[in-house]
Formats: sequence, structure tokens, C-alpha cells
Amino acid sequence: MSDVKLLSTPVPPGGTIGILGGGQLGRMLAMAAARLGLKTHIYSDEKDAPAFQVCDAHTVAPYEDEAALAKFASVCNTITYEFENVPAKAASVLATIKPTNPNAKALAVAQDRFDEKSFVTGLGLKTAPFAAVNSVDEAAAAFARIGGPSVLKTRRFGYDGKGQAKVKSAEECKAAFASFNSVPSILEGFVSFDFEASVVAVRGADGQFAAYDPAENIHENHILARSVVPARLTAKQVADAKAIAKKIADALNYVGVLGVELFVQKDGTLLVNEIAPRVHNSGHWTIEACITSQFENHIRAVAGWPLGSTERHSDAVMENLIGEEAADWKALAAKGGGLHLYGKSEIRAGRKMGHITHLKPRSS
Amino acid sequence: MSDVKLLSTPVPPGGTIGILGGGQLGRMLAMAAARLGLKTHIYSDEKDAPAFQVCDAHTVAPYEDEAALAKFASVCNTITYEFENVPAKAASVLATIKPTNPNAKALAVAQDRFDEKSFVTGLGLKTAPFAAVNSVDEAAAAFARIGGPSVLKTRRFGYDGKGQAKVKSAEECKAAFASFNSVPSILEGFVSFDFEASVVAVRGADGQFAAYDPAENIHENHILARSVVPARLTAKQVADAKAIAKKIADALNYVGVLGVELFVQKDGTLLVNEIAPRVHNSGHWTIEACITSQFENHIRAVAGWPLGSTERHSDAVMENLIGEEAADWKALAAKGGGLHLYGKSEIRAGRKMGHITHLKPRSS
Repeated sequence: MSDVKLLSTPVPPGGTIGILGGGQLGRMLAMAAARLGLKTHIYSDEKDAPAFQVCDAHTVAPYEDEAALAKFASVCNTITYEFENVPAKAASVLATIKPTNPNAKALAVAQDRFDEKSFVTGLGLKTAPFAAVNSVDEAAAAFARIGGPSVLKTRRFGYDGKGQAKVKSAEECKAAFASFNSVPSILEGFVSFDFEASVVAVRGADGQFAAYDPAENIHENHILARSVVPARLTAKQVADAKAIAKKIADALNYVGVLGVELFVQKDGTLLVNEIAPRVHNSGHWTIEACITSQFENHIRAVAGWPLGSTERHSDAVMENLIGEEAADWKALAAKGGGLHLYGKSEIRAGRKMGHITHLKPRSS
Repeated sequence: MSDVKLLSTPVPPGGTIGILGGGQLGRMLAMAAARLGLKTHIYSDEKDAPAFQVCDAHTVAPYEDEAALAKFASVCNTITYEFENVPAKAASVLATIKPTNPNAKALAVAQDRFDEKSFVTGLGLKTAPFAAVNSVDEAAAAFARIGGPSVLKTRRFGYDGKGQAKVKSAEECKAAFASFNSVPSILEGFVSFDFEASVVAVRGADGQFAAYDPAENIHENHILARSVVPARLTAKQVADAKAIAKKIADALNYVGVLGVELFVQKDGTLLVNEIAPRVHNSGHWTIEACITSQFENHIRAVAGWPLGSTERHSDAVMENLIGEEAADWKALAAKGGGLHLYGKSEIRAGRKMGHITHLKPRSS
């Protein structure tokens, strides 16, 4: 990929960060960039993307529109994105015009569950047992190896529980594969774990690395409901979690913030569940509890600035506001926490509408 | 003023806050509104106002353009401003169309130093000695009463030390008055004080009141250089400072954030120096050290929302970045604090370019 543009000098105040994607993550990235005196240009295929309300300029066009992408890239100093499912072609069009981070390798790994798990185990890190399922025969063979119950997932574009099926037999595994229209899939073994945690980390353009304290995450209906910091982890587990994130970030020559989702087993073992090459929902608490939020650190990294501190001055509990949970905004506003509403015009079931963060004095 | 529109219901998420003024205060107000899912429309007479970079919509027009003001008001749910020198005519045009806060009385009091001091002493609060100077004869009489050295100031539109002259005799007082083109002025006696402090407070549409802990302020060249929280005040002085702000806010039937600048005398007496009917530079530390910043609380108040907590979770030192102090932004970014750059395209001497806030664990 000799055509990829690398960031040679930091983007100065007044420069423009291009952000692909105009949802709440793009919105919070834009607000973080503005704190630093940087302008943002948001590119989204949605007409009323929430991030348009807080940016200097925006483009509405499909992610496949190469002319629009090229025009967008031409007016930005550097480019990033708020979601991992950026079409590879779009990313490569952008990357030949302006520095684009996180890089193509990070995107590729995060877009394919099998490649992701293979990459992670290749680094000597642990995951749940897994096997590729590219045919009906492989479905049966994979089940024979992994056992049940286990979960068949499509390799690509899985999000918040869509494209997943729990299977208890080889027959169910084959049927699930067929129900996915036989797209390349992965069978993952169930692992018993105590709780889920995540570590949000940042790697700068110069390789500088920093990680926030891991959060303990509670999911409901396959959507993050709550993140609690500190997580119930020993000092060694905290250090291990950060080391896992560093190993991944270094191996990807990553620039920006990444989230690494972990399963914490009863015996203390940390298994890598997923890599998110972007700011992460479980890192929203950093807005209130750290001097530099995950959003600002992502902007600092992709703009070539020195990273900000990831130190936590307070304990935090972040609660997502999903669908109707955001309807009574007056009651939420009176609750006393740090309330964030995402500027979405319509409440829909399962839609992330906002979040609220409560702080407590730092306990550990 | 029976034509004034009052806020009868809160502005819901998705509603638009109109902000007159597009400098750093308007910019930080817009970002605070966005956190709550509110849109902002910025009105400024400057073509490249910094706040335009973070708002949903903007208008460029003179503050005297009544048609533009009316059009602006028609697309907003409620209106506020970032500076106190809003032309009275502009404020009254807006207030007949949409709720406009802080109200006309607050503006009038803050725009005239003599009215301001008269209002404050009328509440039983203390100020430096003062006298009106509307003629050469009054200049001499005022000096005879107040003594010297003292400071002659124009009654209106003083800002960061402009339109002020130190006088040591009746002759100097008369000459200074003439040098101000004989505009209505005020002679203020020097008072000895230990340090300057300020209290930033907020009053909701329902009369609810809350105040942040007072800051100790250090000025250089008549511009705020640094605010330190907590100030060197006793618990009683802190309570007194907040009570002063409450008395003023209640008397004005004020809605929004106001800053009250105080002189702290050696014997502990608090003198009111100035009222700022807006978010205040000495309250910028609240972005990092409180769950609800002064900017968000101003938006909450003018939008008719419940106020957020003014509690301080950390100690803070806020340093303004004036003129060339913002030039080495790479070094500032590496300093580890909460860095804010205001998106101003040109560094000029004396211009507020940004600020940086450092936190420490709460000491008291």
C-alpha cells in the first residue's frame, strides 16, 4: 500500500479533521476536536446525522461515492471514522489522498470475526475457542470440534447481536449457517466468565501508548447498558488488560483510540472477545472522570498531537439511555449526573439516544 | 414591558437555543447545549466567528439589523447572549418575539457602572465608594468627596480596562473626564484589598438558585490571567459570597449564569466590584472540576431545564492563554491539563486565545 499517506506533521489549530460517520461517536469526536481549536468535517450517508449539529462543515453522500469521498478528503488535513464497518474501498480511496487512521489493517481485522480472533491468538493472547464455517460440511466439523452450546456468527458486519445464532447440535449449526445465506461464518465456543470488561486505549502517531482503567460492562439485550469504573479486577489484571491492548495496538501499528472487549473468567484469566478500532461506548465515562476524554485522545492521536493523560480522577458509572429510556429527559436532567443526549430526532427501540455518567470520589 | 415573552415550557431536546455573540463564550455555550441534545443558532456581526464552527446554524449580521434579528428569533425556541453589551434595542426586538434571558433589567444594570453600583448598594451590599460624573463640575465635586488616588471610568461599555483613568487630583479628574469626550462617567475610590475573587452562580427559570465555589482571580494588564479554586476564603466568606450572588440574582429576577466580581479586604469584608450577566471567564474551571459546567447550567436555565449540580469534585487552576501564550500549542498540549483553544484564526496581543485547566484532588 505505497499510496497510503502518512501524517508527517501535526494538524495545527484551525486545521480540519474529517470524520466518516455522523452518529453519536462522530458527534462527540467533533466536540472534542473543537475544544482543541480544530475544525471538523463530517461525512455521512444520512441527511440529518446528529454530528452535523456540531461541526464546521458536512457532506451527505453514500460511502460508495468515490467522487464525494475524494472531494471530502481534499478539504481535510487528516481523516478518521466513527465506525469499523467502513467499506474497504472507501477507506482506500481516502487513504491515497490524506492520512487516514486507524489504518487499513486495523479495519480489516475488526471487520472479520475470524481474522480478528486469528490475529489475537497469533499474538499469544487468549480467546474463546473458534472455528471457521465456510460450508455446510465445515458447520458440522466445527461443531464437532467446538462442541455446544456455541454461537454461530457471520464473519462480517455483526453488530449488537445481529447475525448470531446459539446452536446446540451439528444440525442446528448447519441450519443456522443456511439461515445466514451461507455467508462465511465463525463458530465460537461458549466460555464461562464472571463478567465482561473492556479496556479503552490510545496509541499516538509516534507510537506513544496510554490506556484508561478498564471498565466493567453490563449488557442487556446484547446492547451495553452500563459501564462501571473501576472494574472488579486486581492490580495485576488491570496491568494485564492494558498490556493486551498495547500488544494489539503495537501489532497493528495503530493510531487512535481502540476498545478491547474482554471476558474475565472465574480463575482470573482474561479472554479477548472483540477489538473495536474506534472510540468505544464503554469509554464514555472518560468525558467526566478524566482530564482528557477518549474522544479528545482519539483526535490528538489522529492529528499527530501529544496524547493527553488517561488518568482517572474519579470513579464512574455510565448508563446508556436506550430507546424510551431517554423519553423522560426532564427526569434525567434532574438526576444530577453528566447527561448526554445525542440529538437524534426520533426515539426507536434499541437505539442509543444518550447516556448519563455519575461520579464518585476515587476509591482505588 | 408587557411585550416580553416568558418561557412557559422547557425547550425540548432538538429545540434551538439562539445565542447572540460568536466568541469563545458563545462557542462553549453551543458545545454545552449540544451535550443536552439542543441545537444552537449563533448570531454574530463577525464573518468567521469562532462559535460558527460548532453550531447547527448561524447568522452574520449587524446587531442593529432588526430584520435579521427578527428572522433569527423566529427560528429559535429561546434566546440568550454571550456578552453584556447587547444593544438595548436588539434585546428588546428579540424579547418581543421569543423568551430572551438574562432579562432587560440585568442588561441595563450591567451596562452602566453607576446604575450597577447604585443597584448593588440599594440591596444593602458593599462596594467601593463611587460618585457620578456627568459634568466638569461634578468631576471636581466627586473628587472632593471620594479623594485620591481614584479611578474615573466611563459609565458604559468599559471592558478589560479600556476607558479608565487613574486620577490624583480634581484637576486630573476633570482632564480625564474631558479625555472621555465628557461622556457620563463614574469616579470610584481605590479600596485596599487582599485579593480579587468571583462567584459564578445560576438561577433557573423557576427561581432555583445554585452557586459554584468562589474562585480567586489574578489579573495581569487588566485581563484575567488565572483563577484558583478554592480561593483563600473562610467557610463563612464562601457562604457570604454565594448569598451576595443570590441577592443580586433574585433582585433582578435573573435567569441564567451570572458572575459577581468581588474585592476581598484584609479584614475579610467582601466588596462587589462588578456584575457580569453571562457566563464568566473565572468560571471556565467548572468544565473540568464539576459534573455540570457553568456553560451547561446557563443553557439549562435559559432553556427552562432543572439546574445541574454546582458541586466541585476537584480543586482547579485555570490559566488564560492570552495572545502569544497560545502560539506554542504543541507544548501546551503536552502539559497534561484540560486544554481549550478557541478557534480564532489570528493571534493578537491581549486576545483571549484559549485556556488550560489543571485539577488536583479536592482539598476542602
